[in-house]
Formats: sequence, structure tokens, C-alpha cells
Amino acid sequence: MADKLTPQSKDFSAWYNEIVQRAELADYSPVRGSMVIRPYGYTLWENIQSALDRRFKATGHVNAYFPLFIPMSFLQKEKEHIEGFSPELAVVTHAGGEELAEPLVVRPTSETIIGHMYAQWIKSYRDLPVLINCWNNVVRWELRTRLFLRTAEFLWQEGHTAHATAKEAEAETQHMLDVYTDFAVSDAAIPVIPGRKSDQEKFAGAVRSYTIEAMMGDKKALQSGTSHFLGQNFAKAFEMKYLDRNNELQYCWTTSWGLSTRMIGGIIMTHGDDQGLKFPPRLAPTQLVIVPIFKNDDEQSKVMGVVETIKAKLGGEVRFKVDDREGLSPGFKFNEWELRGVPLRMEVGPQDVEQDRVVLARRDRPGKDGKAVAPQAGLLHHVHEMLDTIQADMYRAALAFRDANIHDVTNYADFKTVVEDGFARVWWAGSDDDEIKVKEETKATLRCILTDQPGGEGKCFYTGKPAKEMAIFARAY
Amino acid sequence: MADKLTPQSKDFSAWYNEIVQRAELADYSPVRGSMVIRPYGYTLWENIQSALDRRFKATGHVNAYFPLFIPMSFLQKEKEHIEGFSPELAVVTHAGGEELAEPLVVRPTSETIIGHMYAQWIKSYRDLPVLINCWNNVVRWELRTRLFLRTAEFLWQEGHTAHATAKEAEAETQHMLDVYTDFAVSDAAIPVIPGRKSDQEKFAGAVRSYTIEAMMGDKKALQSGTSHFLGQNFAKAFEMKYLDRNNELQYCWTTSWGLSTRMIGGIIMTHGDDQGLKFPPRLAPTQLVIVPIFKNDDEQSKVMGVVETIKAKLGGEVRFKVDDREGLSPGFKFNEWELRGVPLRMEVGPQDVEQDRVVLARRDRPGKDGKAVAPQAGLLHHVHEMLDTIQADMYRAALAFRDANIHDVTNYADFKTVVEDGFARVWWAGSDDDEIKVKEETKATLRCILTDQPGGEGKCFYTGKPAKEMAIFARAY
Repeated sequence: MADKLTPQSKDFSAWYNEIVQRAELADYSPVRGSMVIRPYGYTLWENIQSALDRRFKATGHVNAYFPLFIPMSFLQKEKEHIEGFSPELAVVTHAGGEELAEPLVVRPTSETIIGHMYAQWIKSYRDLPVLINCWNNVVRWELRTRLFLRTAEFLWQEGHTAHATAKEAEAETQHMLDVYTDFAVSDAAIPVIPGRKSDQEKFAGAVRSYTIEAMMGDKKALQSGTSHFLGQNFAKAFEMKYLDRNNELQYCWTTSWGLSTRMIGGIIMTHGDDQGLKFPPRLAPTQLVIVPIFKNDDEQSKVMGVVETIKAKLGGEVRFKVDDREGLSPGFKFNEWELRGVPLRMEVGPQDVEQDRVVLARRDRPGKDGKAVAPQAGLLHHVHEMLDTIQADMYRAALAFRDANIHDVTNYADFKTVVEDGFARVWWAGSDDDEIKVKEETKATLRCILTDQPGGEGKCFYTGKPAKEMAIFARAY
Repeated sequence: MADKLTPQSKDFSAWYNEIVQRAELADYSPVRGSMVIRPYGYTLWENIQSALDRRFKATGHVNAYFPLFIPMSFLQKEKEHIEGFSPELAVVTHAGGEELAEPLVVRPTSETIIGHMYAQWIKSYRDLPVLINCWNNVVRWELRTRLFLRTAEFLWQEGHTAHATAKEAEAETQHMLDVYTDFAVSDAAIPVIPGRKSDQEKFAGAVRSYTIEAMMGDKKALQSGTSHFLGQNFAKAFEMKYLDRNNELQYCWTTSWGLSTRMIGGIIMTHGDDQGLKFPPRLAPTQLVIVPIFKNDDEQSKVMGVVETIKAKLGGEVRFKVDDREGLSPGFKFNEWELRGVPLRMEVGPQDVEQDRVVLARRDRPGKDGKAVAPQAGLLHHVHEMLDTIQADMYRAALAFRDANIHDVTNYADFKTVVEDGFARVWWAGSDDDEIKVKEETKATLRCILTDQPGGEGKCFYTGKPAKEMAIFARAY
């Protein structure tokens, strides 16, 4: 670590690109727009997967796997779907040394092929609901890519459910958005805003799309997870029918919902600072780093003896690492683990050994404020408590930052200023065309129509018409 | 379940195809050769993943993710590699609405792109060893496909490691084969035979390949996992170099090793019988099914009361299901769970309620032999014990079957008879051409040169030459 990171205030985008590579989260690959997720970044993804998968299973979902390749004709069966995805498709035309009779699309999302399979599996109301999730890779050929945020290939989960009634499908759509919200708030320490997408911004083929929107450190928005009520659009395109209790054939109602490796970008940009990453303890690949400090062989043997005892105490209960690399100063190590976002650091020196104590330093509170001495007795309990405190404080800090940067706006002039450096909360009654014009003129998009409405009515900031709903506008990733 | 399965003795292949679909493990997809892994099959895969991943991490490996697409030119850098994989490649020629300047191959395996990245990450001996594993999907355009055993797309893990010396890389190759063996024996209850592949059968680009070979219920062999010593082949093709302790540039030594969803086919065909699947408890998606039995409302309420108590006792300790579906007879349910291979069944009827007991029936011991009464007190402990016993007995049964069907053969005439219905263990000193001729004439291939050699010397069964090594030949999947 020869050089310091570019400060966020100077160039947030440069800071992001630097930290992703310096912390070895990801790297560029030789294929345009594709990324390599390095072990440190992938471990974060594994922790995200496990936190989500636990929630999916607790709500009755099971995992399955559907093919990577989808016949081009399948995508064409749902009109809005193919229109939306057509410009981004990667297409296999040759395989096994021959040209294929029908080109195969590398899945950009799996509604179509899953619809085709569900149509064969579902016969009667007894087979419903079908509640399946998939962990896989998808490809969308984007022109401008950034590590984690927008890549030609990314990893995600896509849930696909089929139901007997519209009401049930709507409830599932909402329920899975709640699951995402709970994950973001509780585990990623990101205070997301749940809401509905406008028709302009909804998923290609959905009746309604819901989203959780987060505010990044540069006050831009990041769509962090989406849940779609697909109505009977895909059921009709793929003949997904079931016999109801009266023995009559009915089309199913379906949903889909996804959260991707983009969330990693969200975690980086919500919590990171000029020293580097700052990972929430619940998801951090390494929650605690132990740095032994000594000047000679005698000190080393005493310190390392205590470190061994501490390791045994922590056991499998905490994700920790001991940095006993030789030839590097403690200060160098501190900086490196700060850069890598490890939430808690434990220092063990000769004085600490004599006094049966350790020093604990919080990543989220640099300087003396975040440093405290702790007795070696009851250390595991103490570490757990500190990690919980850090988790809670990181959420509170992100929430305070977000709330300080959401501004209620009642006219277009103020709106233009606000979206330069924050979120605008507005009454909205504009048309699709109005929404497009706002975007063209301000680069701000309608992030979501709030789930939590204040009630009552207001005047649309843009059209002046009476409005029943409040929305968030912001510039976005 | 209207019809019985085709008996294994009548048509093993038909039995296999039927059970995979009837038990809802997998289904054919609309894309030739690609399969859909249904939730029941995918849960088995998740259990396999978790059993392997635990072992990989315990031996110092970390997971990462590399791109799905590989530039065609990368594959061409290692001569044997491209020759081996060229006929099976799926190729993306168009993306984002345009023809690509260079076609992209959908990864059939990732040695090349990983080699390219390692070359950038590895600078000095301090960066070695690199011990990375990937869980992903790969595509090999096979002409004749079968669910799980040979599919155009499959899921697997591929480990890729880089080392400073040939000795270290060789040790890693062997070590990972040992990990596969331990997993197969301990968790999948499959008595695999570890050994070395012949030059004919080795991985395209490897110096030496090692394998674990299993005997299926029809006495054919299934290659169940492979580990490759790649020497400096890929290091030289991709300029993977490091500065050694003397500050001199050296090429790395690399390995790769993989185990795939094929293992699911191995588990099905090692343990299954005419009643259906038989899953080893450690990997079974459902380890125990509880079937409540009652004739009227009064009995129902008593029985279900006890079932609720049992559910609470089992908690998260056992993977169990309660089959309380209405309108289906206990006998129908028994058959269905037998078909689906659940290792242990618990029956709870009115008599059992009165006597504070349950009936436990083992899937691996049909009939009275495998049925026993157990007190409700200490039930969790008892269930654990029975699952352990079933696991051990299933391994013993598979081992006995395998050993009864491996025959020592000393001449080609006997060989031809033996490989019709078993494995041939032989002294071998043949050439590549000899091996090809044996294959053409008998359909048997050299599965492996045994790791566990008896020592001494013998006479090659085919050439009559003095031979120092024994090998296994068999017809294979």
C-alpha cells in the first residue's frame, strides 16, 4: 500500500474503483465487461448468500437449477420481455462444431424457461404454490460496466413462484421485498427505502415492480433488489394452467424477485470511507483481526502464547484472522486491515500480556474514540457484544446520513438543486412523458413510489396537478 | 405412482431414467442435452456442496468466481487442451446486437482464464501457494446425453492451485484426490477406487490425471472425481511466473480438480433398487419421514399431538418431513417415500400413542428385518444412531457388492467374459495402441492404474510382457 486512496470527496468514482481492486474484492477480466470475483469479495458474497438463503428457506422456498441456455423463440413469447432484453443478449450460434438450427440466448433472467417447465409440472391447484429460488449467473451485455455495479455477467438469485390467485401472488411479491428489506437493514446495515417502480422503470414483462433503494456515500441511489408481480403475462405466454377446485382450467399468477452481486457495490459505497472499506460484522469475511505486537524473541513467545489461548477461546464462534506476518510493522498491518474493512482489531502486546488484557479497536470509530482495553477473561462474550454494537452503530450512521440527505421538494427549481447532491421526496402525478423529461433535464430518475405514504394529498412538484402519492427521485447507478 | 419401476435386472438404463424423473430429481429441458435440476435433486447437490466445501476450507482453500466466457484464443494457447475440448465447445458469436470481433467460448473448464489471472496476481514466492476453488456451471456439447451423467451443461466445483515446486503441486493433486475419496466413502457411502489415468484417458493438458472410480449397480464404472497434476503446461502457456528466494524468475506448477453433478448419478446407481432411490443419510435431502396413521378424528387428534411433540424434539437436528397429506393411504405414502429414497420412516399410530412408542422402518432393509419399535423417550438419540447405522450398512453393502464383482484376470479370453458383467483387475504393460484395441474389441476402458498396488510384478494380461502395475478395466458411463 504505497499510495493513499483518492479521497471520496475528491472523486468518489475513482475511490470506488481503487478500493475494489486494492482490497482484492474483484478484478477486471480479459473479456470486456466481465469481472473476476476474488476470494475476499467472494467470501462476502457467500455470507450474503447464506443470510438470504436462510430467509428464503424459512419462508418455504426451495432451490433448483434451470439451464443457462434459452431458445431465442422463448424470449419472443412475451412481447415486453423481448423488447426490454433484446439489446443486451449474448447469443450462442455454434456448438459442437456446427451452426445451431436455433440460436440460444445466454440467460439474462429465467422467467421464460422456468415458465415453460412450470407449465409441465403444474396440473392442479394441489401443485400450487410453487416456490422456487435459483442461485446462478446471468449475462446482460451492458455498454458501460463497473465492477459489481454493472457487469456483463453477474451472480444473483432469482426467485420464481406460481400461485392460484392474483392476491396470493401479490402477497408473495410484497413478502419477498420485505425479506430483502430485512436482509439489507439487519445484515448489510443499509437503510433501504422500499417502494414501487414507475411503469417506465419496471421489469420488462411485469405488471408491477417493487424495489429497495439505497443511498450511496455520494448521495446517488442504488437499486438493491427487486420483486415483480408478473400477473398472468408469463402464464399466458407459456400456457401455465391448473385445474381449480371446480375442475376448471385457470392460468397461474406468477412472481419473480432478484438480488445480485451488485449488493456488494452497495455495501462498499454505503459504508466505506477514505481509509477504505468498512464491512458490517454480520457479513464481513473477517470480523476480527488479531495483531500480535513484540520487539524481540522473548516478547514474541509470550505474546504468541496468549494469542494461541485467545484463538482457542474464539474457536468457530467468530470469523477471525491472526496477522503474524514477519517483517511488517503493526502500523502497516493496521492500515491494511482498515483498508480491507475488518470491523474489529485486537492488539496484543507485552504490556497487555502482563495485565491479562487486550486492546480492541473499532473500524467504524477511527482514533482514540474507538479504542478500548478489555480483560482476557470473558473475551468471546465481549467481542460478540462489540460486533453487535458496531453492526447497530453502522446502521444508525448510514440512516442518519441518508435522512440528512433526503429533501422534501415542492417545485422544479428546488428539485434541480436537490438532485445534484441528494434524494428529492416529492408529490408526483406526472405522466410517462413527464418522467422522461425530468430524467433528460436533471439526470434524476423516479427511484420509487414510496411504500410508506404519508397519507393525504399534495401538489405534484412538476405538473402542479393534485397528487396522491409521494415518490423519491435521485440520480442513480 | 400408478406403475412400478422397470426392474433393474430387466433394463438398468430404463430404471435409471424412470427413477430420476419419477422421484423429481431432474427433468429434460427444451434445450438439447441441458437438464433442469428439480428441488429434490438440487437439495442433494446442496448437501454434496456443503460436505465438499467444508473439506476444501479445512484444507486451506478459498472460493472465488471467474468469468463464464473465455476468449477462443486463450484455449488455443495450450495445444493438448484445445485439441481435447475443441469438439465440445459452445461459442458466443453475437452480443449486444453485434457480431463479436473474437468469438467467446462458454467455459468447458477454466484452466486458461484462471491461468491468465494468476499470471497477474502472482509476483513472488510469497504469493504462493494459491489455493482457489470455484462452484460454477460449465458447458460441453456432448452428443449423447443422460440426466446427471452426461449433460451439455453441468454444475461442478473446479479447484485451481499454483505452487512453487513440482513436489508441492503433486502433493496437492494427491491430497485433493484423498479429499474426494473421503467424501465418497464417508458421505456418499460409495467405495471408490483411487488411481491414475492412462495417457489415453487423462485430462487434455495434464501431465498426470488421478481419478476415483465407482462401481454402479449394473457393474459398470463411473468416474466420480478427478485431480490433475498440470506440471508447467498452463504456467508456460500463460506466463505464470514468480520470483524465487534467489530473486530468479520461475514458472509455477499448477493443479486442477473437479467433482460434478455426475456424482448424483453415482449415488442413484450405487444404492438404488427396484423400489427406487436409497440415499445415504449424510446426504439425503430428507433423512426421516414421519407418517401419522389414524382412522377417525379422535385418533387423528391423539396421533397428531404426539407427532407435534416429536417434531419439537427433532428440531433442527434431523432433516425430517411429516407426511400429513389427506386422502392418501399409509401404504401409498410408504411406497412414495421409499421411491424417493428417504433412509428412515417413522410410523405413529393410535397403538403407538398408547404405548409411548413409534415404529421405525429402514429403507435399506425392506420388510420385517428393518422394522423396529422405539420408545418415545430418547427418540432423537435413537434416530441419530439408526441413521449412523444405515450410513455404515449402506457403505458395507456397496463394498461387498463391488468386491464380489472385481475379478483378477490373467488372459484376454477371461477378460472379455469378465468385463461383460464386472471389473477386471489385471497386470498391465500395454501401449496406447494396445489400450485402444482393447477398448474397440471389448468396450472396456482402462479406468485407473491402482493407487494401492499389491507390489511385485506380473505378466500383462494382454501383451504377455512383464508388468509392474495393476489396473482396473471396465465398461464405463
